[in-house]
Amino acid sequence: MTSPLRSTLDFLVHDWLQADSLTARERFADHSRETFGAVLDTCERIAREKYAPFNRTVDTQEPQFDGEKVILPQCTHDARLAYAESGMLSAAQDYALGGMQLPYLVESAANSFFACASISIGSNLLTTGNANAILVHGTPLQQQVFAANEFNGRWAGTMCLSEPQAGSSLSDIATRATGDGEGFEADPLGPRYRLRGNKMWISSGDHELTENIVHLVLAKIPGPDGKLVPGVKGISLFICPKHLVDTEGRLTGERNDVALAGLNHKLGWRGTTNTLLNFGEGRHPVRGSAGAIGYLVGQPGEGLKCMFHMMNEARISIGMAATMLGLAGYYASLDYAKTRLQGRPVGSGGKDASAPQVRLIEHADVKRMLLAQKSYCEGALALNLYCARLVDEGRTGQGQAAADARLLLEVLTPIAKSWPSEFCLEANSLAIQIHGGYGYTRDFPVEQYWRDNRLNMIHEGTHGIQAADLLGRKVVMQGGAGLQLLARTVGATIAQARQTPELAPYAQQLEQALQEVGAATQAAWATGNPGEALANAVPYMQAFGHVVLAWVWLDVAHVVLSQDASLSIAANAGRMGACRYFFHYELPRIGAWLQVVRQRDATCAALAEDAF
Amino acid sequence: MTSPLRSTLDFLVHDWLQADSLTARERFADHSRETFGAVLDTCERIAREKYAPFNRTVDTQEPQFDGEKVILPQCTHDARLAYAESGMLSAAQDYALGGMQLPYLVESAANSFFACASISIGSNLLTTGNANAILVHGTPLQQQVFAANEFNGRWAGTMCLSEPQAGSSLSDIATRATGDGEGFEADPLGPRYRLRGNKMWISSGDHELTENIVHLVLAKIPGPDGKLVPGVKGISLFICPKHLVDTEGRLTGERNDVALAGLNHKLGWRGTTNTLLNFGEGRHPVRGSAGAIGYLVGQPGEGLKCMFHMMNEARISIGMAATMLGLAGYYASLDYAKTRLQGRPVGSGGKDASAPQVRLIEHADVKRMLLAQKSYCEGALALNLYCARLVDEGRTGQGQAAADARLLLEVLTPIAKSWPSEFCLEANSLAIQIHGGYGYTRDFPVEQYWRDNRLNMIHEGTHGIQAADLLGRKVVMQGGAGLQLLARTVGATIAQARQTPELAPYAQQLEQALQEVGAATQAAWATGNPGEALANAVPYMQAFGHVVLAWVWLDVAHVVLSQDASLSIAANAGRMGACRYFFHYELPRIGAWLQVVRQRDATCAALAEDAF
Repeated sequence: MTSPLRSTLDFLVHDWLQADSLTARERFADHSRETFGAVLDTCERIAREKYAPFNRTVDTQEPQFDGEKVILPQCTHDARLAYAESGMLSAAQDYALGGMQLPYLVESAANSFFACASISIGSNLLTTGNANAILVHGTPLQQQVFAANEFNGRWAGTMCLSEPQAGSSLSDIATRATGDGEGFEADPLGPRYRLRGNKMWISSGDHELTENIVHLVLAKIPGPDGKLVPGVKGISLFICPKHLVDTEGRLTGERNDVALAGLNHKLGWRGTTNTLLNFGEGRHPVRGSAGAIGYLVGQPGEGLKCMFHMMNEARISIGMAATMLGLAGYYASLDYAKTRLQGRPVGSGGKDASAPQVRLIEHADVKRMLLAQKSYCEGALALNLYCARLVDEGRTGQGQAAADARLLLEVLTPIAKSWPSEFCLEANSLAIQIHGGYGYTRDFPVEQYWRDNRLNMIHEGTHGIQAADLLGRKVVMQGGAGLQLLARTVGATIAQARQTPELAPYAQQLEQALQEVGAATQAAWATGNPGEALANAVPYMQAFGHVVLAWVWLDVAHVVLSQDASLSIAANAGRMGACRYFFHYELPRIGAWLQVVRQRDATCAALAEDAF
Repeated sequence: MTSPLRSTLDFLVHDWLQADSLTARERFADHSRETFGAVLDTCERIAREKYAPFNRTVDTQEPQFDGEKVILPQCTHDARLAYAESGMLSAAQDYALGGMQLPYLVESAANSFFACASISIGSNLLTTGNANAILVHGTPLQQQVFAANEFNGRWAGTMCLSEPQAGSSLSDIATRATGDGEGFEADPLGPRYRLRGNKMWISSGDHELTENIVHLVLAKIPGPDGKLVPGVKGISLFICPKHLVDTEGRLTGERNDVALAGLNHKLGWRGTTNTLLNFGEGRHPVRGSAGAIGYLVGQPGEGLKCMFHMMNEARISIGMAATMLGLAGYYASLDYAKTRLQGRPVGSGGKDASAPQVRLIEHADVKRMLLAQKSYCEGALALNLYCARLVDEGRTGQGQAAADARLLLEVLTPIAKSWPSEFCLEANSLAIQIHGGYGYTRDFPVEQYWRDNRLNMIHEGTHGIQAADLLGRKVVMQGGAGLQLLARTVGATIAQARQTPELAPYAQQLEQALQEVGAATQAAWATGNPGEALANAVPYMQAFGHVVLAWVWLDVAHVVLSQDASLSIAANAGRMGACRYFFHYELPRIGAWLQVVRQRDATCAALAEDAF
């Protein structure tokens, strides 16, 4: 029997986003609905067998450091192995690299099974992201030695950006990189530097899952005066392997001076080791000189640019993680609501205490909590898959279509990341609520989903960072071209939906909402003062996100209504219900959010510090 | 130096609620602002010394059952002892009972220090509530033997209502009580029954903190046919001591047949043992017959009524717990924001990367998250203290004033319980967000506050139960008399605020909001069908709560503006800021909530089960 998640993915990927049409493109010519389906089948099976049964295990058996090694439960090793053997680490890569040339859309859909089963048991997306960055910005030998060995599963990768004193403010990183002696620029693996500094919040920063770990590290090369260049311009990108390797990718037997300084003990997401790493502190002195050895990637001073290349996909991955945690809670609470007996419905006939108890799902308020979850999480899934489809279009589409896709993706990325982080977390809270007291215990999975999900508003750019990116950059860049493109895209959905009596009122409501967002954007920037415009960037992003989700649901509903009515009636009725829910219960919320944006409300910003 | 919490309490209790005026009443005649202050001083000190330092300890050292005894960390024993020795267990009781005859308002304010320092280390409010119920409904000997020994700290108390199959639906409890042999009715401690059944979610259901535990148990006495009466009418209330006692309150050495069946392992609130108890299963057979010995309290069949007598205060306590967890997070994130350096503000002059980093509190979005917390939590504190003041008025006021206070309290109780549970939880999430990655670690206290607080929407009547109580009962009872009284009370604040230019626009906004709530109430019930009216009871309660909180803030602001401007300028500026925040950012949210209520929106209720 097809799982609910698989059914939803099939509908969104094929019926809504028409993944099959991608197979007409040269890159995907070997693929078909069947090959896509086979990938989804495999991933669903591995997730069911190697991930789901151990989600609580990795929560209770946190990573331990014995002074030598990081110890992880056996299930984490097994899950990692199964994932690597599936080929998913290089699913989207060229055949030449051992990849499957899978569309990013299908790769994202396939990875969603793992996120739903156990978000924290693996951190494979970091490895893929790391290898992708080297693929784009590294030399051919760096690609061959480092990226290829990540894609094939031998090694894992990390992203070392933050430092204890520099989280959101990356321009303040203080890790230094200096040339490693004479001839340092001529190393075949890339200009060789010595790095010294501390990196915080490094996921999978140390472990024994793989024979080596490839750290991608942001650091600053001091100027001739020995001082670090302030700001992001001074930042360069380096490859720092845990164990040094030769040009054939063989371990030389030398441990690089990258030392685990501590494990972070987190609220959730405990399956993934999170670390403070010391680079070049002398714990593992290497080759008779101080500092961790690192090879420059790309040009000096362009480190952040290299990392940001990967940012859209990383942020979609976070949005997807939040979404799948939300869906996992939805499925759990739906199952519970369908079986748990409690109370009697209010209404016709009154409450007859001698009548048998009914199941939770027979109560209107429980249905409300279920439909809210469905509307949030399936809507978020649709949005994230839509963004993944834009990635494919931007890479393999033609001329203007590809350019449009890239621009639209720029505008939508902050929403794809932030909206699920906020509202699928709310969905997890509703899943707990449906379980009542049982949901508050660790005997049921929903409290862990809620804890795990709380991370997503923080990492890969906090909510505040996303909001500043949206209102401060994305909607104003290129004279507002991105916002106008989004408006045209939404407008096309509105025009279609108007033709359907059932959807016409929602089309009208969405058009109005879109105008309100446009007006608020203009009003926010009316004085041209970023301090005034951005003081309410988060409420702006919340409203913007709700309009985007309303558009997604309207577009989904339009496809539902255009389908043969005999097809999956129940599932389509559910999609229509979720769409109605969103327009009735959610979209009206934008009024309160936009009001303070429009008025450039200074209540918060202007309050004196001593008044708090 | 006065703590921020103490300053806020002093303002609310004295300046706003004029606690001093209570000392004109006979019951409180020995009291003065000074005696009230001394109680607050004592409680603040004990909370600082015996509670706050151990809040993380009780989170990590969960209660353990060794097969014989429940093991709690030493700090829990110490905290319990200090609390009992403070006299707070009987603070509100008559002098004759060893009490202080403290107003409930002052008792609530004093207890808030403990809740803020460590919500879960103690469960003293359960003991007080238990003893109060016996005081009201028990015989003189029951009062003397059981209640008095709870008030003096020798014994602790529990409330045994829920069962594994009957959480929200108490009418479905299945614990049976049968007369304990011939002459059972003549026991001096009350008619003696044998109880058999299971009780779930029993806080402090077993421990060694006290020499005895007094369980107050709901059970059903079968009819002559041996069958249990369906519904709440069949429920009676019993005292089941863990160890049997004589009429002098001495332990007889006999263990009653109340057995710990299991500890619940919770998401948070871990300092408080939460248990499944088996009554009369034979683990501790007593006096040669089956069943746990229990003494009837009050009349047979009136058990729920006896318990509901205590419900308003219990629900205010939950609201206060949620509030203090919210405030604890606010204070923690405020401290953090004042010291942690991160980034540079946007705005005038642009970002100069060579300028030093600024503190978090210098960012507008951080100020927004702080002011939201302040507005939620100080507003919730004000509301809960207002309700406590209504308790005093209902008990010690004159004629109509007392009756009005009782009616108003009935209407406000669901809000006092539910609103802080929802919005002070949201405040805790914002406190995490301000901390960034650090907030997600267990090295900082905010993640625990968030976990602890998640319980409050569940226990003492879930959110859904509160909403059904509000819209299904409280606003319609007595022909809407309660709602009308609230409207008059809010109207009086509006009329006053209108006189002040700074508040007049808010008065106008609140009047409009109040009308919208009234209209939505009528529209919800327009068809007279409870199923239709209550389908959106939760959104109704959210809107209702926001209107109540707006009223509270307007009333507070009015008092602020009437104070000598030279007094505590910064704190009053903060109150005005929080009021403005609430009217600008929060009150406008009611539109979206009330729309579905007004339209009796059936989107959720009507969706077929297979569509989920």
